[in-house]
Amino acid sequence: MKLKEYPLCPRFEKAMDILGKRWTVLILSQLLIGSRRFSEIETALPISGRLLSERLKELEEEGLVTRNVYPEVPIRVEYALTTKGSELSPIIKGIEGWASNWIELPQEKN
Amino acid sequence: MKLKEYPLCPRFEKAMDILGKRWTVLILSQLLIGSRRFSEIETALPISGRLLSERLKELEEEGLVTRNVYPEVPIRVEYALTTKGSELSPIIKGIEGWASNWIELPQEKN
Repeated sequence: MKLKEYPLCPRFEKAMDILGKRWTVLILSQLLIGSRRFSEIETALPISGRLLSERLKELEEEGLVTRNVYPEVPIRVEYALTTKGSELSPIIKGIEGWASNWIELPQEKN
Repeated sequence: MKLKEYPLCPRFEKAMDILGKRWTVLILSQLLIGSRRFSEIETALPISGRLLSERLKELEEEGLVTRNVYPEVPIRVEYALTTKGSELSPIIKGIEGWASNWIELPQEKN
């Protein structure tokens, strides 16, 4: 990669570093409807628990997601969007709309 | 990756496979203002010519970008968004807006 001056907003580039990571937007889309337990997200997405855990930690570090621990028995842990995360809502819904208009899926092989 | 039934729109997943690829959205954002030559995009982004060429070819295959060749001397090649590509405009502008509101950059090191 060339490191040189370029007329590109570095914030946009950083945003794409976060959002472009595989599964990140799909995980965020799962939280648009409200806070969810780890196991609920894991069931909804075809990714391993290890990878989901890694992504959620990154999203927490970036301030898009909060992890709330409820001291019940058994302990309950839920993930929710922060304001920073929930302001991605129109973007995520925009991608969903664009995808349903424009993406064709390959025919299933039997 | 677990392959199992899951209640996720596969079109959304495919869209994120395209858009999530490093540099893709940044290249598309360069074409929002109009058609551009390869060298103009290359100058605007800190990526190698080889990688830019690869990404543009993928975007052409996905139907988001057209490559127009003008038989001048020297030959002129320009890239432009298709309708499918240009309908990503509100999404890309949404990401830019979100980034400028929410992304903090680390302090520059001297």
